[in-house]
Order: sequence, then C-alpha cells, then structure tokens
Amino acid sequence: MTLSFASPETASAISTDRLLCAAQNQPVDRPPVWMMRQAGRYLKSYRDLQEKYPSFRDRSEIPDLAVEISLQPYRAFQPDGVIFFSDLLTPLAAMGVDFEIVDHKGLILAEPVRSQAQVDALRPLNPEASLPFIGEILRTLCNELQEQVPVLGFVGAPWTLATYLVEGQNSTHYSIIKTMAWQEPVLLHQMLARLARSIAIYALYQVQNGAQMIQIFDSWAGHLTRQDYATFVLPYQWQIIRAVKAIYPEVPVALCVHDSAALLPLMETSGADVIHVDWTIPMAQARKVLGDRPVQGNLDPCVLLGTPDLIRDRTLDVIQQAGTQGHIMNVGQGILPTTPEENVRCFFETVRSATYPLVS
Amino acid sequence: MTLSFASPETASAISTDRLLCAAQNQPVDRPPVWMMRQAGRYLKSYRDLQEKYPSFRDRSEIPDLAVEISLQPYRAFQPDGVIFFSDLLTPLAAMGVDFEIVDHKGLILAEPVRSQAQVDALRPLNPEASLPFIGEILRTLCNELQEQVPVLGFVGAPWTLATYLVEGQNSTHYSIIKTMAWQEPVLLHQMLARLARSIAIYALYQVQNGAQMIQIFDSWAGHLTRQDYATFVLPYQWQIIRAVKAIYPEVPVALCVHDSAALLPLMETSGADVIHVDWTIPMAQARKVLGDRPVQGNLDPCVLLGTPDLIRDRTLDVIQQAGTQGHIMNVGQGILPTTPEENVRCFFETVRSATYPLVS
Repeated sequence: MTLSFASPETASAISTDRLLCAAQNQPVDRPPVWMMRQAGRYLKSYRDLQEKYPSFRDRSEIPDLAVEISLQPYRAFQPDGVIFFSDLLTPLAAMGVDFEIVDHKGLILAEPVRSQAQVDALRPLNPEASLPFIGEILRTLCNELQEQVPVLGFVGAPWTLATYLVEGQNSTHYSIIKTMAWQEPVLLHQMLARLARSIAIYALYQVQNGAQMIQIFDSWAGHLTRQDYATFVLPYQWQIIRAVKAIYPEVPVALCVHDSAALLPLMETSGADVIHVDWTIPMAQARKVLGDRPVQGNLDPCVLLGTPDLIRDRTLDVIQQAGTQGHIMNVGQGILPTTPEENVRCFFETVRSATYPLVS
Repeated sequence: MTLSFASPETASAISTDRLLCAAQNQPVDRPPVWMMRQAGRYLKSYRDLQEKYPSFRDRSEIPDLAVEISLQPYRAFQPDGVIFFSDLLTPLAAMGVDFEIVDHKGLILAEPVRSQAQVDALRPLNPEASLPFIGEILRTLCNELQEQVPVLGFVGAPWTLATYLVEGQNSTHYSIIKTMAWQEPVLLHQMLARLARSIAIYALYQVQNGAQMIQIFDSWAGHLTRQDYATFVLPYQWQIIRAVKAIYPEVPVALCVHDSAALLPLMETSGADVIHVDWTIPMAQARKVLGDRPVQGNLDPCVLLGTPDLIRDRTLDVIQQAGTQGHIMNVGQGILPTTPEENVRCFFETVRSATYPLVS
C-alpha cells in the first residue's frame, strides 16, 4: 500500500460519516481519528476548569461542565468523533454503590461488594430516573455538533466494573475477584449478570439520547487466561452487544481490553464491530488474526511524548500496516496527562494528511 | 499425550538433574517444578523472620538470613531447584545508586538517574568487592543442598533495571524512560550498555559461586512495541546471555518478561534456553510459536488461591499442553503473599505425581 498526502487544509473537510463508515468497514477517504481520554488533563483548558471545579463528579455530572469538557478537544484538534466526558464507574452510583473517585488514586469503595446480600442489593439501573444528566449531556452534544462528527457513548463491561466492586479499589493482581471466581462462581456470575443487564440498558439509553457509536471498555479482562475470559467475560460482553444490536443494528460497537494481544480471537467472537488493539502486537499481525474486521488503536500513547518526527513516523506506520479500509486511528490506551498539546496536534494533523489512494 | 500418575512417595526421588535436563531439552521422568518468589511472604516461617528482621536489605544481604529464607520453601515443598533470596535491585546499590526498598511500595530512589553526569557516575560492578555476601549465600546454599537440587541464580535485565533508575520508583506507564528513549536515545543506550556489562559480570559471579542456572527477569519489557523491544531490550539481554554462554555454555539461562504473549518470537532470539510464558496465552499456543524450545511458567498465580481441584486441574492442563519434554512447571508470575501454604503443597504434589509415559 502507498499513501498519498494532502495538505491539512484540503483534507480537513469533515464528514459525519467517516468514523461510522470505517467502523462498518465501508470505504472512507482517510482513516478517521479520535483519542482515548481525548478530553482531560493534558489540555490546559481542562486543567483550568479542574481548578475551578475540583470534584470529578461535578465535572462529569453537571451537564454544562461535561459538555464543555467534551468539546474542548474537538475545538482544539477536530477529531472525527466526540466522546462524552464521564467515567466507567458513573452508573455504579446509580446502582446503589457508594464510592469516591480520588485524583491520582482512582476509585475507593466505601464497602467492597463480596456477599450475597450485597449482590442482591445492587439496584437495576434506571437511567432516566437516576442518570438524567447523561441524557442531557448527550443531547446537548448532538445539538452543538450539528452532525459534523458523531457523538460516542461508552460503558464499562461487567468484568471490569466487577473488579472495582469486589476489589474495592484499583488492583494489580485481581486476586480477590479471581478467588471469588474459583470459590463462589455462582455469586460472581450473579453479580456479572446484574451488571450486564444494567449496562445494556445504560448503553441503549446513550443511543436513545444521541450516541452514534458505543465504545465498550473491558480494561482489566486482559489479566485472565483464555479459559477464564470465555467464562467470566465473553458472555457478558456479548449480552450488552446483542442488546444494542437487537434494537440498533446500525450502531457500531467497539471493544477495548488492555493487554489483549493474545485475546484478539476471543474479542472478535463478542460480536463487536471494531476491535481495539494495543501496541504490543504490530497492527499487521493483528490484521492477520482479525481478517478484515475493523480495528482501532495500536499507537503507544507514550509516542506522543516524543519528537514530531517520531509521532509522524509511528502514526503513519500504524496506518500503513492497518490497510486502507476498516481502520480507526487511535492511541492504544488513554493519552497521558503529561502529553504536550502541540504533540497531540501533530498526531491529528498526521492522520488528516494521510489520504487513501483507493478512494478519491 | 496421556499422563500417568505415580503416588507422591514413589515419585519423590529427587534428581539434581531434572531441572537442568528439562532446561536443556533432555528427557526427564516428569516436569521439574519451582515457583517464582518461592521464598517469601506467603510462608509463615518467612513472616516470623520478617518480624524479627524488618529490613529487606538485612534479610537479603546477611548470609545466614538469606540462606535460611532460601531454604524455607525447599524444606516445606521440595521444589526441583532453590533460587537464592535477593532482589533484582541489589546490584544497583553496588553501582552507586542510593535507594530504599519500602514494603508494599517497592523501590524509591533518592535521585532518579536522568543526566549524562549521573549515567557516567554509575560504577562498574565488582561483585567480589561490593557484593561478597552474594557469593557467600550461593556457596553456602550449594553446600547445604549437597547437589540434591540445583541452585538458581537470577539477575534483572538492563531495560527493567533502567526503568527503576529513570522513573525513580515503580511505574505504570514507563512514560519517563520512554520519553528518554525518544528524545535522548544515546544517553539511554549508554545507561543500558553500562547495566549490561555489570549485570553480565554479576551473572558470571553467581555461576562462579555455584549457581547452576541463571534466570533473567526483564519484567517490564512487555510494555514496549516490538520495534522498541528490538532496539532497547533485545541487544542487552543478548549481551548478558552471550557472556554467560561464552564461558559456561552448559549453564541454562531462562528469560522472563511479564505481559509477553506477543513478544515470544523476539524473546526466543535472545538466545535464552528457556522462555517463560505468562497465562494470557495457552501453553499449547506458546508451543506452536516456540517449537521445541524449553518453556516455563503459564499458571496464573491466582489459581493457587483456589480450591485443590482447581489447582490440580489447571496445573495438569499446563503440563498436558506443554508436552513431555522441555517443560519446567512454574507460576507465570510471582506467587502472591496471600497464598495458603496448603495450596502451594497441593501444587507441588500435583506436579510430582504427573510422570511422563515416555520415560521410565
């Protein structure tokens, strides 16, 4: 494959369809691009707001603030999609789980969920009643963007949410939830099933309020053997994807798991339209495993701490290896807060300048 | 492949050669077995000593203590090898780096090594002069074990040691050392080359004092792309292995990298005799990638928090998948401090009861 390069001006005509087309494996003029954590701490405009509103829950739950934060990177870099600013854990509060999100430490649960009584007490999610601000954020974003680019919804998958519930905080080894998996599998499956039902409803609520694509994060499922992934992860991912597809077959679903190089074949069986790929596996090799299934990711976010030449070389290398169809350019994991804004600009401009030769 | 099972008594005849033979792909009666972090906190006898000697450096640098700790799991479980109790970072102090090892937090460096002057100030290691206790620990272990089982030496590889030097503490994203890799590659290569020379000398010193196999840990190299692994990791692993092999071609070298499922083909090119495999890739698939190269690991250490049935099933499954030659049973990462001792016993007894049908 050879790439041709248009000047950023010519190539910057924004199509609302580029991201959705690529996610559905339809031809596009160039790879669409967005970034995991594209709204956040690396942006000075975000840090200014953070100073004024120090509570993460305020920033993500007050609609005006969350909309403003979601749009900051769009105004700065014109990505091909806008993901709404929120957290994987936001719906847990609405299920009756009492937690705090502490800067630099992540989630701290008042009481880890480990007993039958606690699992039974997890309330089914009713987003209209308990998360109305999410609907408002999404509707406002759609209104602001006027279909220039699609709005992306996202949810945490049951295994990953359960790691927080059971471990009570961020974990290194996931030893408590794995012990539950071995010793009380029925209890854990009950928890996962409850989460799956609520998260499916949450994903549908996001689509009903304007999300045009759903990103599922099962961040910590990559710490499992293939056997455990098939037992405790896959059926619940599948349940959410099936629920979305049953009602909105046209809405693409993307699936992201960290440290997933060896799990790509199983990720594909989830029914997700787009498979997120980390950077430990070359994109060309992921392509061999996944065939023509749309792919996303693959750039080490630390590359954006490097020189402009490095950023251009590595970005174009991923694009070359991914081929000319079914590829969404993205970082393999969330962009780091220490990333300079000019490097992010270099990344976006590089992708915008790479037009496929196969499509005019 | 079918496995036959001997009673633990019949199978417990210990051969000094089982581990070394398997590492050299020679026939053995059953897979040899040892555990990463087999000496340590999961043992009550260790925790008792820890209470009496709270400093990690005391426990690992006072020969009588380190020997006693190394032998505790041998007395309890009769593994097929005894790894000496120490830390990857021990040689750094002898290179002039000032650090503390804090329980539950790991290493904290007084001053991260990031400048040319600091790299130039890293002293070449002279183990006889600055780490004589290591020689004494290894010689005493050999003497105590009387060749019943081999003594294992171990070293940290340059990339992994450099992550500590540059980041200054345990890291999640390795963003500081990666930034150095992009922006000051010459400086980083100088640091890695200095570390490689000293670590090669350290590995040789361990063999000269009785270590019969060398385990190389490049724990954090799995966070790199294949391209960066080839540039910043592989040449320095290769340098250490070549140095050992040049003088002691009969001493097997094993290489362990965490999160390495996608890196196995590159790990093989290091020249290591034994490739450690984590649990995200089924052993049968690792076998396909590595051919008949000896393999080690693959059991999720969290399995040892499960029931006896689970421990037996998963252990035998790894053994089945690995085939009847060139396999050393081990956990895929260090055993967790919360592991019950009776579960560790179950693990060892399971391996001892599994005799290969192909060898009497």
